[in-house]
Amino acid sequence: MTATALREQRSAYYRQLQTRGLSPLWEALHNLVPKEPRPQAVAAIWKYAEIRDLVMEAGSLISAEEAVRRVLVLENPGLPGKSSITSTLYAGLQLILPGELAPSHRHTQSALRFIVEGRGAWTAVNGERTTMHPGDFIITPSWTWHDHGNPTIEEGGEPVVWLDGLDIPLIGHLDAGFAETYPEVTQPVLRPEGDSFARFGHNMAPVRHRVTDGTSPVFSYPYERSREALDVLYRNGELDEWDGVKLRYINPATGGWPMPTIATFMQFLPAGFAGKTYRSTDATVYCAVEGAGIARIGAEQFRFDAHDVFVVPSWQPVSLSANSDCVLFSYSDRPVLSALNLLREART
Amino acid sequence: MTATALREQRSAYYRQLQTRGLSPLWEALHNLVPKEPRPQAVAAIWKYAEIRDLVMEAGSLISAEEAVRRVLVLENPGLPGKSSITSTLYAGLQLILPGELAPSHRHTQSALRFIVEGRGAWTAVNGERTTMHPGDFIITPSWTWHDHGNPTIEEGGEPVVWLDGLDIPLIGHLDAGFAETYPEVTQPVLRPEGDSFARFGHNMAPVRHRVTDGTSPVFSYPYERSREALDVLYRNGELDEWDGVKLRYINPATGGWPMPTIATFMQFLPAGFAGKTYRSTDATVYCAVEGAGIARIGAEQFRFDAHDVFVVPSWQPVSLSANSDCVLFSYSDRPVLSALNLLREART
Amino acid sequence: MTATALREQRSAYYRQLQTRGLSPLWEALHNLVPKEPRPQAVAAIWKYAEIRDLVMEAGSLISAEEAVRRVLVLENPGLPGKSSITSTLYAGLQLILPGELAPSHRHTQSALRFIVEGRGAWTAVNGERTTMHPGDFIITPSWTWHDHGNPTIEEGGEPVVWLDGLDIPLIGHLDAGFAETYPEVTQPVLRPEGDSFARFGHNMAPVRHRVTDGTSPVFSYPYERSREALDVLYRNGELDEWDGVKLRYINPATGGWPMPTIATFMQFLPAGFAGKTYRSTDATVYCAVEGAGIARIGAEQFRFDAHDVFVVPSWQPVSLSANSDCVLFSYSDRPVLSALNLLREART
Amino acid sequence: MTATALREQRSAYYRQLQTRGLSPLWEALHNLVPKEPRPQAVAAIWKYAEIRDLVMEAGSLISAEEAVRRVLVLENPGLPGKSSITSTLYAGLQLILPGELAPSHRHTQSALRFIVEGRGAWTAVNGERTTMHPGDFIITPSWTWHDHGNPTIEEGGEPVVWLDGLDIPLIGHLDAGFAETYPEVTQPVLRPEGDSFARFGHNMAPVRHRVTDGTSPVFSYPYERSREALDVLYRNGELDEWDGVKLRYINPATGGWPMPTIATFMQFLPAGFAGKTYRSTDATVYCAVEGAGIARIGAEQFRFDAHDVFVVPSWQPVSLSANSDCVLFSYSDRPVLSALNLLREART
Repeated sequence: MTATALREQRSAYYRQLQTRGLSPLWEALHNLVPKEPRPQAVAAIWKYAEIRDLVMEAGSLISAEEAVRRVLVLENPGLPGKSSITSTLYAGLQLILPGELAPSHRHTQSALRFIVEGRGAWTAVNGERTTMHPGDFIITPSWTWHDHGNPTIEEGGEPVVWLDGLDIPLIGHLDAGFAETYPEVTQPVLRPEGDSFARFGHNMAPVRHRVTDGTSPVFSYPYERSREALDVLYRNGELDEWDGVKLRYINPATGGWPMPTIATFMQFLPAGFAGKTYRSTDATVYCAVEGAGIARIGAEQFRFDAHDVFVVPSWQPVSLSANSDCVLFSYSDRPVLSALNLLREART
Repeated sequence: MTATALREQRSAYYRQLQTRGLSPLWEALHNLVPKEPRPQAVAAIWKYAEIRDLVMEAGSLISAEEAVRRVLVLENPGLPGKSSITSTLYAGLQLILPGELAPSHRHTQSALRFIVEGRGAWTAVNGERTTMHPGDFIITPSWTWHDHGNPTIEEGGEPVVWLDGLDIPLIGHLDAGFAETYPEVTQPVLRPEGDSFARFGHNMAPVRHRVTDGTSPVFSYPYERSREALDVLYRNGELDEWDGVKLRYINPATGGWPMPTIATFMQFLPAGFAGKTYRSTDATVYCAVEGAGIARIGAEQFRFDAHDVFVVPSWQPVSLSANSDCVLFSYSDRPVLSALNLLREART
Repeated sequence: MTATALREQRSAYYRQLQTRGLSPLWEALHNLVPKEPRPQAVAAIWKYAEIRDLVMEAGSLISAEEAVRRVLVLENPGLPGKSSITSTLYAGLQLILPGELAPSHRHTQSALRFIVEGRGAWTAVNGERTTMHPGDFIITPSWTWHDHGNPTIEEGGEPVVWLDGLDIPLIGHLDAGFAETYPEVTQPVLRPEGDSFARFGHNMAPVRHRVTDGTSPVFSYPYERSREALDVLYRNGELDEWDGVKLRYINPATGGWPMPTIATFMQFLPAGFAGKTYRSTDATVYCAVEGAGIARIGAEQFRFDAHDVFVVPSWQPVSLSANSDCVLFSYSDRPVLSALNLLREART
Repeated sequence: MTATALREQRSAYYRQLQTRGLSPLWEALHNLVPKEPRPQAVAAIWKYAEIRDLVMEAGSLISAEEAVRRVLVLENPGLPGKSSITSTLYAGLQLILPGELAPSHRHTQSALRFIVEGRGAWTAVNGERTTMHPGDFIITPSWTWHDHGNPTIEEGGEPVVWLDGLDIPLIGHLDAGFAETYPEVTQPVLRPEGDSFARFGHNMAPVRHRVTDGTSPVFSYPYERSREALDVLYRNGELDEWDGVKLRYINPATGGWPMPTIATFMQFLPAGFAGKTYRSTDATVYCAVEGAGIARIGAEQFRFDAHDVFVVPSWQPVSLSANSDCVLFSYSDRPVLSALNLLREART
């Protein structure tokens, strides 16, 4: 048979297949099983100085209660219309003004809050409120009621902006999203602030506590303590050629990640640090906390300053340099890759 | 401000957002965080009697070696062009003719083979070949070299068809796919057939075996034994109102799933069984092995016979009835949902 | 002060200490914290040919029911009066005659039965009876009701002798022993023989089974299958220079040990095998099943034949040689040492 | 046969058994398998006021270096000559004077130090020194080099007394003790004080830390923080009818116990607290830190004051009452019982 005849015969066959809900694997195999990851997401940065005004303007265009969550989504240019910053993760900047309440709800999506600016607003989880300060890392685990609020100006409230990190795209891919609205605007306060920290913040735990799922019983990881830990270790001489000084947040009840789908990290890069290149199959979102530096991601280069957010898709080579002493917060889908035995790393 | 003015003001604002890589969450929130799962995949069935000829025809249109894998993909009508049967899983019917070889490769995608018809072909994994018989369940775990072959007609070879189940869409969402081609058509045979079964098939294990990942050291689960287990339990009086007699395949080294991303099951429904309705967040692909029955999925109803394949997307209510003694094999993404604390079930 | 004066002063002080419930550590430290293990148990062998008559004679001196358990304890010569074969383990030979019943009870001590001679007697655990054949390994886990019986001579009963292995001394050291007598001689039979094997004997498990403790849901590990596994592996070329071909019994629901305190093994040594020397901190009791050989333990040497029992205390160097094809069953306290991070091994 | 004849026949048989290393189980069964635990250890108290002088006198009778460890063992009256406070645990009061060094060694026994009085002495573990303060809980895990020291009087040194808790009897029963002496008096200091706390004390962990055993990477649990946690929880309304406010120390890398064989706890009982009765199969050693109260153990009653040590053997009913605000430290063999599935508790 000639090549043309074969091609035509195959085309006819393919049309027939389609009527039966079938398709020929051999025409698609290379795309389905690539040599290495080819993420649609691309490296990108959001300069806080360029978007802060837009964040604040949202405050006059819609109320926290009408919006339910007044958030500007950081949408990856490679994933237009998908409200995603990576294939599995979501990032947004949320604004809450003095006197506002963001009503209580819960969902199977896990969420983190990383405080960017302002102080005094609170998040309530499981009946306990946590006050926010810049640099604090706060979690609202899967299927826990949560609401946010801010004292009035009279009470000392100020506009507060935080970075929201969620696993919305992942839960979407898995068809596992459930959500409910709480019957009232806020959930009742059942325990004083600091209660969960007293239980689990001192390398101790209540004697009858039983671990029932993979989420941390501690909701707040204050910046004050994270920052001090980095500081002590740097002064003690700890400095990795790729990471600088890098810690991961843990669930003190298990030693694992704070939530089953999202890993979180904080790292320190001293002024002048020029990190080596690594890559890994978890996609990572960075938020600069202090200092300025440069992130080289693949062939691109991004200058970052405090409060900027940038993203490194799966398997993209990345190196970090610091022009001044830098602190970086980051989150990724590493627990998912780890649990499914799909985490790969390369350091060069 | 009038509603119109507000709408216009917001539209202008949204356009501005777009230039900065931002989008307003409040316009998308309900879609992103639904009340319950809304899978794009739909319930569907592939009647083997209607597609068998097409499967066989592939044998004359392309060789196993040219195709690499000569497979007709069962593509979910709700996911056109995506080579997926559910949001996370792939299914295909693979044909290998007497005398053919499907060349050796490996990939991070995990694969299962469930033998539909024919006998005598083999799959090689980790240097050990396993001969196929109808109803056998065989695994080729993530990143293991594997190739398939079939003896010549002279040696007694016959056309063999099996159902391939992989986690291709999941690995795609996670941007975690790697693949390599083996330098030769087949990998060397290092161990006689039955070696891994001798090591792990008798509730025993080599004394110095160490568990290093979540994949089973046993590659083949012969139908003969699975069928007998169902039979004994049915005769012993075991019959669940939803499941009939249902067993899951296990990794004998851990008691967990045979592979970290795919669960597999085999169940028996006696003639006249009319199962109750359940739903769960794992999406499941069924392949009938023996008998005939009816699957009610959501508002639809599918009559199945031996070798038919049907799919139940996440959270769709399903009930199973048997017109004659039925055996059903099935696979799902349950280990993923479980590991990430996202598995929900409801039995009614 | 002179040495004598000091000694006297210290003696006076020590007497004073004693009145207050105190003692000086420095006089005892070397004994309490030795350089390496100094077990009181010694290497020893019980030749079955020399004790079989005594075992049988017990049958005429006391009934199974009066004895509750008609067992001759194999008492380590280094642990006189302690009913122990090692510091943590107990071994005994139990005889049950045709028509007898050993009444039902339960205790927190875990027990194994390894059948030495005779067939047709049964053990009941959790409502299921298991028939005994020489070489079978059967468990009666902690706190499960268990009773033993033997058909009458008319029904084909014959005297049956098995080796009992328990963790009695360990549970004694831990002050954790509880026991109860069943209100009737035998527990009711709830499930046909083979039920638990059908559930867990085929690398499958009931879909809704939950692991709640560390004990195996399979009670019987038939010799037929263990022997075949060893045979296949030996023919496949497996032969460790220390162990020959050695498998451990596993709990199929976890991949761990069948019971939380006792490990069990079966190994094959081909005729002419001269094993190298190893030592480990678990103490091991061996029971020869087939063949004859030599066990070198420390400075001693023991010739063993089928049915002989010998013991290797903690950290004693041991090597095994085979005069003819040998099969050895063994059990040890390895799970305890492992769980507490106290297992050490040396192979030389 | 008459009863006398039978008795004589059995006696003759028993003598014969003895010559073969055998003994009749039926004569010993009730002792070997008791209805419930019958510990040889008894409830007891050591009043610090009555023994403090003896502790101090040891300082003039033997140097720390000659003694290796200058410790008075608290020996349970039910276990004379065994240097044990329970069947598995050891307790002792160690004294180190200004300017002294207790030389470096390591052993497989796990050790804890609970500081009773004095401050400024240090323990070194894994190259890091920790300064002691009253109420601090410090660990020297199995097989880690450790040495203790005290600054000279000129440097501000003062006599320091702490309670040593070890698993010496357990390791003895298991024949698993190994020990080595360090070639120099002290091990080199490799890391500044506070280094391990900076790594693991803030609900964070070094990003590349791998868990390799069950021991905590944090060596010191300062009283200041434990005390505050209890205080906050009491003020928040936490008060268990049996325990008061009770926390357990955890290994932050796993959420488990600080060491694989010893559990440690700290609890607060407010003045006037009259606790209910409980019992459990772990044996517990208590050390009062603050306040005075009464411990009812079995039929006995012990009044305790700060620094007193008392012991509750396995399965003895115990209730605790507080005459003034009390803080109690305690340690037990609970991890052993738990790991082996032998932990039972009853609260009445």
